[in-house]
Amino acid sequence: MTASREIHLVRRPDGIPKPDDFAVVPAVVADPAEGEVLVQNVLMSVDPYMRPRFNGDQALGEALIGSGIGRVIASRNPRFAQGDMVRHGAGMREHFLSDGRGLQIIVPDPDLPLSVHMHALGGTGLTAYGGLLDTGKLKDGEQVFVSTAGGAVGSVVAQIARIKGCYVVGSTGDDTKAAWLRDEAGLDAVINYKTQPLREALTAATPKGIDVYFENVGGAHLDAALTRMNQGGRIPVCGMISTYNGGGEGVRNLFLLIYGRINMQGFVASDFGHLNSQFVSDMTGWLKSGRIKYQETILEGFERAPEGLIGLFEGRNAGKMIIRVAD
Amino acid sequence: MTASREIHLVRRPDGIPKPDDFAVVPAVVADPAEGEVLVQNVLMSVDPYMRPRFNGDQALGEALIGSGIGRVIASRNPRFAQGDMVRHGAGMREHFLSDGRGLQIIVPDPDLPLSVHMHALGGTGLTAYGGLLDTGKLKDGEQVFVSTAGGAVGSVVAQIARIKGCYVVGSTGDDTKAAWLRDEAGLDAVINYKTQPLREALTAATPKGIDVYFENVGGAHLDAALTRMNQGGRIPVCGMISTYNGGGEGVRNLFLLIYGRINMQGFVASDFGHLNSQFVSDMTGWLKSGRIKYQETILEGFERAPEGLIGLFEGRNAGKMIIRVAD
Repeated sequence: MTASREIHLVRRPDGIPKPDDFAVVPAVVADPAEGEVLVQNVLMSVDPYMRPRFNGDQALGEALIGSGIGRVIASRNPRFAQGDMVRHGAGMREHFLSDGRGLQIIVPDPDLPLSVHMHALGGTGLTAYGGLLDTGKLKDGEQVFVSTAGGAVGSVVAQIARIKGCYVVGSTGDDTKAAWLRDEAGLDAVINYKTQPLREALTAATPKGIDVYFENVGGAHLDAALTRMNQGGRIPVCGMISTYNGGGEGVRNLFLLIYGRINMQGFVASDFGHLNSQFVSDMTGWLKSGRIKYQETILEGFERAPEGLIGLFEGRNAGKMIIRVAD
Repeated sequence: MTASREIHLVRRPDGIPKPDDFAVVPAVVADPAEGEVLVQNVLMSVDPYMRPRFNGDQALGEALIGSGIGRVIASRNPRFAQGDMVRHGAGMREHFLSDGRGLQIIVPDPDLPLSVHMHALGGTGLTAYGGLLDTGKLKDGEQVFVSTAGGAVGSVVAQIARIKGCYVVGSTGDDTKAAWLRDEAGLDAVINYKTQPLREALTAATPKGIDVYFENVGGAHLDAALTRMNQGGRIPVCGMISTYNGGGEGVRNLFLLIYGRINMQGFVASDFGHLNSQFVSDMTGWLKSGRIKYQETILEGFERAPEGLIGLFEGRNAGKMIIRVAD
């Protein structure tokens, strides 16, 4: 028997969640049965996708769903040894039992912080890598436009494109992120779409057009990008955040796909399992050499997960928001 | 010297063109110089794309631009022999001189009318063939939706898909075309988008979803199709007629590309030159065996070109509208 805790949703939030919408609840986890492992959570991810779930899909009085990295502290499953580090989607629990399904063993690099496996070396990094190089068929030296370039995926996309010798323009809605992209990540041009007229700024920033538009936004961003696409251009479609709630303007410039012979292709990270070992090798090297930079905000302590969630929706995080549960 | 005639635009039309907007003008064509050929027009095409040109791009007092099939009646160019049949874009002229550039020799099949080289065996047929099989990567037995299925391209797309064993749904805005598609072309289901609610009708007509949506329309058609696309579906983008004038609704369902891993790819007929010999071979066989059916409206007499143009915009043509200039 192991004493544990869980983060519960106890009330459906109205707008940005408040501290009282959550509770830290004690729990007891049994010893592993045959075939099971006992995992101690080490790092937990808090992510924007969680908020819509609070309106209904997330049950009240149960542990919040979510992903993280944990350590196997007892194993009766031959696939796992005590001490193995595993990526999991087991939710916001200090300890949990698993039959091993959904656990992915990772081998942390001793020269990198474990937290990079939550972003640049994790799912968002693989999304960026596969979406840009495989779906987007990026060629060295091309002209690249990345929307939400300050985000976990976009910032990696933009930097991989720089590594490949491309001219890279990013858009963001935040001046602090814009400064980081220009000064730290080394983008060729950055557009703040909240303070600049998007279409005019994009035209000025892309004198040689766009070969690959990495799409995270949709709507007005897509319409603007379509006017700048070069013949044979590619639009890997990773997200369309402007349209998820049914709001925003419809897209009117899709006819430009025709004579431009533009390709749009939707994808998700799980399409790139076959690239994973190459991705881990490339990204580990880029992180160690400092060619891929990142930002992360780490809150110390399991009980601070609600604070992290609230901070996420108030935009208080710089880069990836992580809760450290244990060393 | 050869006596000829030309069709001129003499006044910019207001709405649907009127007879007085055009004039049949006498002309004289010189004998071919070294390197030139003299061509007699045999069949002329009248097409919807001509109308927007009348607002500006088409000069007043000059022969209307346009394509057709002619016969070389005198040649001082070694690439062409007297009697060769050529496809051309030399405009609405009874006779014309050419240095050979832009002339494509065709070898009419003795068992087929020459006019099929203006549609099913011509540019619209190749557009349909390449767009469906090459861009759309159609596999035998898939689920196919074709917009403007009553048109020159769409009707061929739909029938090729039937030949490939596919389940085929077409949309059209005309009950007569709908009846032809169902009764003659053998489509599995036909939607009249002017009299039926498009989204509901498409859902009912596609119980197994859509693997390939052949896109000619954009706007509400694309939004409806996106809700029915199967995983890994393809949308070859041939046209977006609903959006050419800036009107219509913007597209709001593109986020469905992401989890559906849908591919959209723009193309034009000239992308398929490498497929031409296979296309001619396949299509000739399909036409001879009656597996590809077509409709055409042929007006006899060069001077009837304005009547053909006006009839086109009034929707009086069944299938491809052609002017026969000579036998």
